[in-house]
Amino acid sequence: MTLDVAVNNETFAQFRSRSVRRIEDVLETLLPPAHLLPARLHDAMRYSTLGGGKRVRPLLVYAAGACLGVPLELLDRPAAALEMIHAYSLVHDDLPAMDNDDLRRGLPTCHRAYDEATAILVGDGLQAQAFLVLAEPGWGMAAERQVQMLASLAQAAGSRGMVGGQAIDLAAVGHELALPALEQMHLHKTGMLMRCAIQLALCAAGIDAQEARGAALLRYADRVGLAFQVQDDILDEIGDLQQTGKAQQGADRSRNKPSFITLLGLAEARSYARRLLDEALDALQSWQAEADHLRALARLIIERSK
Amino acid sequence: MTLDVAVNNETFAQFRSRSVRRIEDVLETLLPPAHLLPARLHDAMRYSTLGGGKRVRPLLVYAAGACLGVPLELLDRPAAALEMIHAYSLVHDDLPAMDNDDLRRGLPTCHRAYDEATAILVGDGLQAQAFLVLAEPGWGMAAERQVQMLASLAQAAGSRGMVGGQAIDLAAVGHELALPALEQMHLHKTGMLMRCAIQLALCAAGIDAQEARGAALLRYADRVGLAFQVQDDILDEIGDLQQTGKAQQGADRSRNKPSFITLLGLAEARSYARRLLDEALDALQSWQAEADHLRALARLIIERSK
Repeated sequence: MTLDVAVNNETFAQFRSRSVRRIEDVLETLLPPAHLLPARLHDAMRYSTLGGGKRVRPLLVYAAGACLGVPLELLDRPAAALEMIHAYSLVHDDLPAMDNDDLRRGLPTCHRAYDEATAILVGDGLQAQAFLVLAEPGWGMAAERQVQMLASLAQAAGSRGMVGGQAIDLAAVGHELALPALEQMHLHKTGMLMRCAIQLALCAAGIDAQEARGAALLRYADRVGLAFQVQDDILDEIGDLQQTGKAQQGADRSRNKPSFITLLGLAEARSYARRLLDEALDALQSWQAEADHLRALARLIIERSK
Repeated sequence: MTLDVAVNNETFAQFRSRSVRRIEDVLETLLPPAHLLPARLHDAMRYSTLGGGKRVRPLLVYAAGACLGVPLELLDRPAAALEMIHAYSLVHDDLPAMDNDDLRRGLPTCHRAYDEATAILVGDGLQAQAFLVLAEPGWGMAAERQVQMLASLAQAAGSRGMVGGQAIDLAAVGHELALPALEQMHLHKTGMLMRCAIQLALCAAGIDAQEARGAALLRYADRVGLAFQVQDDILDEIGDLQQTGKAQQGADRSRNKPSFITLLGLAEARSYARRLLDEALDALQSWQAEADHLRALARLIIERSK
């Protein structure tokens, strides 16, 4: 079991299931209650955020926090804010005008379970809620660092980050993209939030992103973010529909979306993911066992089957 | 000319045109440049924000700032952040799944000028940009107050604020709403951002919203917000299409949207707007000439013809 290395006497498997339970409890608490008016909207916001998922971004926050010795209480809100941004982006990506997906994790997408107008508002409301979660007082973070976190999240989520990546992705449908352009797209679309997970953990630890430890962890995040996307394309091609919860195998490819598979082929994509994993692990060189959860998480990301 | 009272030797007409020019310059600077990649997205974000508009929320910020003696430099970003949130909400409201509007201020709506997917992303990007504008360092605001502003904006924009009002509005189409329910909807949909304009100005002035001056200005904002909406319904009914820039007269009514007109009739709606104006002016009692721009702005809001 290469994954089961222990940090603070906890194996990665234990860390992972504990952290997933924890972030789900935290999200449960930080989302407006379902009975609060407008109830349909709040119900749909909860449906779209609490319905499972790999919780990769929160896991990155918690694993980086473990590596840097940050108390869990200072990681909960950053992890939840990131997951809310991620959840909103999926709701909007699934809309008819975007990817037009009916299923997400094996369940009806938000606009199918509710309606399109509600899904637009769910995304809008979740984005505001993510910023609220970081900006609220009383969770033990100094105002200076709260502001840094908020700026970091706004940058990563916005038009020069995730939303920008989505726009590049849309523009690329039906076009051939060269590898550097494809990577640029993914660095924005998924990479910036992964990077932000590390930035928020660094901020909670009071470590400057410019100092060596910060820069190394951000290098790790960039490689992991890209590896995640390569693996996503691999799973879109070969994944078990039951496991991925998608409606169709090769859905992205059949939509003429540029992917690492169309560009590199399956075998080369696999070895590229391996290479990115190696680089991610290299970036963690100066840490001992305290970075083992980060190492295991990087492995998990390219070894996952959903 | 009842509007042309002077604050700091400036008439309201001068204050208004100077402030509108100022916020447009500020927005111009704080939005990502049009040539920055993804260029189509950034171009559309600018199209949706810089294409005119009454700039009521920025005017509220600047007028409250003038009343409280706040330097303009501390009001620019709050005013711009509010206007970006407002602009994003219009882009999303105009979408086919929502109001399905083709024209806004006499120009094609964002999804007509670009496309629907781009319009969704424009809204998403503008929301993130609004939070970024407040969270960035280096504009002279102490971190504690920046965080307060960010929390205030997130609350006003989110599912318990503007987005929630939009959801109540959607749910109300085709239903009869009693006056209190209609007011609740508008207090969320437009009122919360107007209130936030005052909250941000109070915060920039270092005044607690709980203290008497703060509470009075918030009372002013609530009345003005509601009066604005009553006037909107009046203009939807009787307004000059050339001036309102809308595609159809009585569009909201013909959509079976509940309105102050259907509920009260035109004459009663007009006297209700007057009553709200009087209450707004009452709230400013304890100020002298320094509140004259706020007074003139309240009058303008119910005397406007577009």
